[in-house]
Amino acid sequence: MSEQWLAEINWDERGLIPVIAQDYQTGRVLMVAWMNAESLQLSVQEGRAIYWSRSRKKLWRKGEESGHVQKLHEVRLDCDADVIILQVEQLGGIACHTGRHSCFYRVLQNGQWISVDPVLKDPHEIYQGGKA
Amino acid sequence: MSEQWLAEINWDERGLIPVIAQDYQTGRVLMVAWMNAESLQLSVQEGRAIYWSRSRKKLWRKGEESGHVQKLHEVRLDCDADVIILQVEQLGGIACHTGRHSCFYRVLQNGQWISVDPVLKDPHEIYQGGKA
Repeated sequence: MSEQWLAEINWDERGLIPVIAQDYQTGRVLMVAWMNAESLQLSVQEGRAIYWSRSRKKLWRKGEESGHVQKLHEVRLDCDADVIILQVEQLGGIACHTGRHSCFYRVLQNGQWISVDPVLKDPHEIYQGGKA
Repeated sequence: MSEQWLAEINWDERGLIPVIAQDYQTGRVLMVAWMNAESLQLSVQEGRAIYWSRSRKKLWRKGEESGHVQKLHEVRLDCDADVIILQVEQLGGIACHTGRHSCFYRVLQNGQWISVDPVLKDPHEIYQGGKA
Protein backbone atom coordinates (compact mmCIF):
# COMPACT_ATOMS: atom_id res chain seq x y z
CA MET A 1 0.00 0.00 0.00
CA SER A 2 1.90 3.01 -1.24
CA GLU A 3 -0.15 5.76 0.35
CA GLN A 4 -0.15 6.57 4.04
CA TRP A 5 -3.88 7.39 4.26
CA LEU A 6 -4.69 3.92 2.93
CA ALA A 7 -2.32 2.30 5.40
CA GLU A 8 -4.09 4.04 8.28
CA ILE A 9 -7.27 2.10 7.60
CA ASN A 10 -7.98 -1.01 9.65
CA TRP A 11 -8.73 -3.39 6.79
CA ASP A 12 -10.41 -6.59 7.88
CA GLU A 13 -8.88 -10.04 7.51
CA ARG A 14 -9.99 -10.07 3.87
CA GLY A 15 -8.44 -6.67 3.20
CA LEU A 16 -11.86 -4.99 3.02
CA ILE A 17 -13.73 -2.17 4.74
CA PRO A 18 -17.51 -1.57 4.83
CA VAL A 19 -18.57 1.64 3.12
CA ILE A 20 -21.77 3.59 3.72
CA ALA A 21 -23.00 5.68 0.79
CA GLN A 22 -25.05 8.63 1.96
CA ASP A 23 -26.87 11.21 -0.15
CA TYR A 24 -24.78 14.36 0.26
CA GLN A 25 -27.83 16.61 0.25
CA THR A 26 -30.56 14.74 2.15
CA GLY A 27 -28.43 12.55 4.44
CA ARG A 28 -30.42 9.49 3.39
CA VAL A 29 -28.31 6.35 3.65
CA LEU A 30 -28.44 4.76 0.22
CA MET A 31 -26.52 1.51 0.58
CA VAL A 32 -23.63 -0.29 2.24
CA ALA A 33 -20.98 -2.07 0.19
CA TRP A 34 -17.32 -3.01 0.51
CA MET A 35 -14.02 -1.65 -0.73
CA ASN A 36 -10.47 -2.91 -0.84
CA ALA A 37 -7.52 -0.53 -1.01
CA GLU A 38 -7.48 -0.47 -4.80
CA SER A 39 -11.17 0.34 -5.10
CA LEU A 40 -10.95 3.11 -2.50
CA GLN A 41 -7.93 4.64 -4.17
CA LEU A 42 -9.66 4.50 -7.57
CA SER A 43 -12.84 5.98 -6.09
CA VAL A 44 -10.90 8.99 -4.85
CA GLN A 45 -8.92 9.32 -8.07
CA GLU A 46 -11.97 9.13 -10.31
CA GLY A 47 -14.41 10.95 -8.03
CA ARG A 48 -16.98 8.15 -8.11
CA ALA A 49 -17.79 5.12 -5.97
CA ILE A 50 -15.97 1.99 -7.06
CA TYR A 51 -16.66 -0.94 -4.75
CA TRP A 52 -15.26 -4.43 -4.38
CA SER A 53 -17.83 -7.07 -5.20
CA ARG A 54 -17.41 -9.89 -2.71
CA SER A 55 -19.57 -12.26 -4.75
CA ARG A 56 -17.89 -11.59 -8.09
CA LYS A 57 -14.48 -10.92 -6.54
CA LYS A 58 -13.77 -7.95 -8.75
CA LEU A 59 -14.03 -4.17 -8.91
CA TRP A 60 -17.59 -2.94 -9.16
CA ARG A 61 -17.86 0.44 -10.81
CA LYS A 62 -21.22 1.41 -9.39
CA GLY A 63 -23.48 2.52 -12.23
CA GLU A 64 -21.37 1.00 -14.98
CA GLU A 65 -24.34 -0.86 -16.35
CA SER A 66 -27.27 1.00 -14.80
CA GLY A 67 -25.93 4.52 -15.25
CA HIS A 68 -26.60 5.01 -11.54
CA VAL A 69 -23.16 6.39 -10.84
CA GLN A 70 -22.36 7.79 -7.39
CA LYS A 71 -20.35 11.00 -7.66
CA LEU A 72 -18.06 11.49 -4.70
CA HIS A 73 -18.33 14.60 -2.53
CA GLU A 74 -16.60 13.55 0.68
CA VAL A 75 -14.88 10.56 2.31
CA ARG A 76 -15.05 10.12 6.09
CA LEU A 77 -13.47 7.57 8.41
CA ASP A 78 -14.64 6.55 11.87
CA CYS A 79 -12.70 6.52 15.14
CA ASP A 80 -11.74 2.85 14.82
CA ALA A 81 -10.72 3.39 11.18
CA ASP A 82 -12.83 0.41 10.14
CA VAL A 83 -15.89 2.01 8.52
CA ILE A 84 -16.06 4.64 5.76
CA ILE A 85 -18.85 7.02 4.80
CA LEU A 86 -19.06 8.46 1.33
CA GLN A 87 -21.12 11.55 0.72
CA VAL A 88 -22.39 11.00 -2.81
CA GLU A 89 -24.60 12.42 -5.48
CA GLN A 90 -26.69 9.48 -6.69
CA LEU A 91 -27.22 9.90 -10.43
CA GLY A 92 -30.64 8.70 -11.52
CA GLY A 93 -31.82 8.80 -7.92
CA ILE A 94 -31.68 4.99 -7.64
CA ALA A 95 -29.05 3.22 -5.54
CA CYS A 96 -30.76 -0.15 -4.98
CA HIS A 97 -30.84 -3.02 -7.46
CA THR A 98 -34.56 -3.35 -6.66
CA GLY A 99 -35.11 -0.01 -8.40
CA ARG A 100 -35.58 1.94 -5.19
CA HIS A 101 -33.85 5.12 -4.06
CA SER A 102 -32.24 3.40 -1.07
CA CYS A 103 -31.52 -0.22 -0.17
CA PHE A 104 -32.99 0.49 3.28
CA TYR A 105 -36.64 0.38 2.27
CA ARG A 106 -37.96 -2.00 4.96
CA VAL A 107 -39.11 -0.74 8.34
CA LEU A 108 -39.84 -2.89 11.37
CA GLN A 109 -43.49 -2.36 12.30
CA ASN A 110 -45.27 -4.53 14.85
CA GLY A 111 -42.80 -7.35 14.43
CA GLN A 112 -42.79 -7.33 10.62
CA TRP A 113 -40.49 -5.89 7.97
CA ILE A 114 -42.68 -3.60 5.87
CA SER A 115 -41.55 -2.16 2.52
CA VAL A 116 -42.28 1.54 2.75
CA ASP A 117 -40.42 3.01 -0.24
CA PRO A 118 -41.65 2.81 -3.84
CA VAL A 119 -39.93 1.04 -6.73
CA LEU A 120 -38.96 3.94 -8.99
CA LYS A 121 -37.94 1.84 -11.96
CA ASP A 122 -38.44 -1.80 -12.93
CA PRO A 123 -35.10 -3.58 -12.36
CA HIS A 124 -35.55 -5.31 -15.73
CA GLU A 125 -35.42 -1.89 -17.34
CA ILE A 126 -32.33 -0.93 -15.37
CA TYR A 127 -30.18 -3.95 -16.15
CA GLN A 128 -29.55 -5.93 -19.30
CA GLY A 129 -28.19 -8.64 -16.99
CA GLY A 130 -25.65 -8.55 -14.22
CA LYS A 131 -26.09 -6.52 -11.08
CA ALA A 132 -26.10 -2.99 -9.72
CA MET B 1 -34.81 -17.66 17.15
CA SER B 2 -38.43 -17.48 18.13
CA GLU B 3 -39.49 -14.50 16.09
CA GLN B 4 -39.95 -14.52 12.34
CA TRP B 5 -38.60 -10.98 11.79
CA LEU B 6 -35.34 -11.99 13.45
CA ALA B 7 -35.10 -15.14 11.35
CA GLU B 8 -35.42 -13.06 8.17
CA ILE B 9 -32.11 -11.35 8.89
CA ASN B 10 -28.99 -12.66 7.19
CA TRP B 11 -26.78 -12.97 10.26
CA ASP B 12 -23.12 -13.41 9.44
CA GLU B 13 -21.09 -16.48 10.31
CA ARG B 14 -20.69 -15.13 13.85
CA GLY B 15 -24.44 -14.54 14.21
CA LEU B 16 -23.97 -10.75 13.97
CA ILE B 17 -25.20 -7.89 11.79
CA PRO B 18 -23.65 -4.42 11.38
CA VAL B 19 -25.87 -1.61 12.64
CA ILE B 20 -25.72 2.04 11.61
CA ALA B 21 -27.00 4.54 14.17
CA GLN B 22 -28.28 7.69 12.53
CA ASP B 23 -29.59 10.85 14.18
CA TYR B 24 -33.32 10.72 13.53
CA GLN B 25 -33.55 14.49 13.09
CA THR B 26 -30.39 15.55 11.24
CA GLY B 27 -29.55 12.34 9.38
CA ARG B 28 -25.98 12.49 10.66
CA VAL B 29 -24.48 9.00 10.91
CA LEU B 30 -23.30 8.67 14.50
CA MET B 31 -21.60 5.29 14.65
CA VAL B 32 -21.57 1.71 13.41
CA ALA B 33 -21.65 -1.22 15.80
CA TRP B 34 -22.82 -4.84 15.86
CA MET B 35 -25.85 -6.71 17.12
CA ASN B 36 -26.73 -10.33 17.62
CA ALA B 37 -30.32 -11.52 17.71
CA GLU B 38 -30.63 -11.07 21.46
CA SER B 39 -29.34 -7.50 21.41
CA LEU B 40 -31.61 -6.53 18.52
CA GLN B 41 -34.63 -8.04 20.20
CA LEU B 42 -33.79 -6.26 23.46
CA SER B 43 -33.23 -2.98 21.62
CA VAL B 44 -36.71 -3.16 20.16
CA GLN B 45 -38.27 -4.25 23.43
CA GLU B 46 -36.59 -1.52 25.47
CA GLY B 47 -36.65 1.22 22.84
CA ARG B 48 -32.93 1.89 23.08
CA ALA B 49 -29.80 0.70 21.27
CA ILE B 50 -28.24 -2.38 22.84
CA TYR B 51 -25.27 -3.64 20.87
CA TRP B 52 -23.09 -6.71 21.00
CA SER B 53 -19.53 -5.89 21.96
CA ARG B 54 -17.23 -8.05 19.86
CA SER B 55 -14.20 -7.24 22.02
CA ARG B 56 -15.91 -7.89 25.36
CA LYS B 57 -18.21 -10.59 23.97
CA LYS B 58 -21.24 -9.35 25.85
CA LEU B 59 -24.25 -7.09 25.54
CA TRP B 60 -23.37 -3.41 25.40
CA ARG B 61 -26.16 -1.18 26.62
CA LYS B 62 -25.05 1.99 24.87
CA GLY B 63 -24.94 4.81 27.39
CA GLU B 64 -25.01 2.57 30.45
CA GLU B 65 -21.91 4.21 31.83
CA SER B 66 -21.77 7.49 29.91
CA GLY B 67 -25.47 8.28 30.00
CA HIS B 68 -25.29 8.67 26.23
CA VAL B 69 -28.26 6.43 25.58
CA GLN B 70 -29.64 6.10 22.06
CA LYS B 71 -33.44 6.16 22.08
CA LEU B 72 -34.89 4.15 19.24
CA HIS B 73 -37.19 5.79 16.71
CA GLU B 74 -37.06 3.40 13.74
CA VAL B 75 -35.39 0.18 12.61
CA ARG B 76 -34.69 -0.38 8.91
CA LEU B 77 -33.27 -3.35 7.02
CA ASP B 78 -31.57 -3.32 3.63
CA CYS B 79 -32.36 -5.35 0.52
CA ASP B 80 -29.84 -8.08 1.35
CA ALA B 81 -31.07 -8.20 4.96
CA ASP B 82 -27.51 -7.90 6.19
CA VAL B 83 -27.30 -4.29 7.41
CA ILE B 84 -29.58 -2.43 9.82
CA ILE B 85 -30.11 1.30 10.30
CA LEU B 86 -31.43 2.66 13.57
CA GLN B 87 -32.93 6.11 13.66
CA VAL B 88 -32.01 7.29 17.14
CA GLU B 89 -32.17 10.22 19.47
CA GLN B 90 -28.66 10.57 20.89
CA LEU B 91 -28.96 11.65 24.50
CA GLY B 92 -26.17 14.02 25.49
CA GLY B 93 -25.38 14.61 21.84
CA ILE B 94 -22.26 12.44 22.03
CA ALA B 95 -22.06 9.05 20.34
CA CYS B 96 -18.29 8.61 20.08
CA HIS B 97 -16.01 7.43 22.87
CA THR B 98 -13.65 10.28 21.87
CA GLY B 99 -16.26 12.74 23.15
CA ARG B 100 -17.41 13.79 19.71
CA HIS B 101 -20.94 13.91 18.33
CA SER B 102 -20.18 11.28 15.68
CA CYS B 103 -17.49 8.63 15.26
CA PHE B 104 -17.05 9.84 11.68
CA TYR B 105 -15.05 12.95 12.44
CA ARG B 106 -12.16 12.48 9.99
CA VAL B 107 -12.38 13.70 6.40
CA LEU B 108 -9.99 12.80 3.61
CA GLN B 109 -8.38 16.02 2.40
CA ASN B 110 -5.42 16.07 0.02
CA GLY B 111 -4.43 12.54 0.93
CA GLN B 112 -4.73 12.99 4.70
CA TRP B 113 -7.35 12.15 7.30
CA ILE B 114 -8.20 15.45 8.97
CA SER B 115 -10.24 15.67 12.19
CA VAL B 116 -12.93 18.23 11.48
CA ASP B 117 -15.35 17.82 14.39
CA PRO B 118 -14.76 19.16 17.89
CA VAL B 119 -14.42 17.13 21.07
CA LEU B 120 -17.51 18.14 23.02
CA LYS B 121 -16.50 16.52 26.28
CA ASP B 122 -13.26 15.10 27.64
CA PRO B 123 -13.52 11.29 27.52
CA HIS B 124 -12.08 11.14 31.04
CA GLU B 125 -15.10 13.06 32.23
CA ILE B 126 -17.46 10.74 30.36
CA TYR B 127 -16.17 7.42 31.63
CA GLN B 128 -15.08 6.19 35.00
CA GLY B 129 -13.36 3.38 33.11
CA GLY B 130 -14.59 0.94 30.50
CA LYS B 131 -15.91 2.01 27.15
CA ALA B 132 -18.79 3.74 25.40
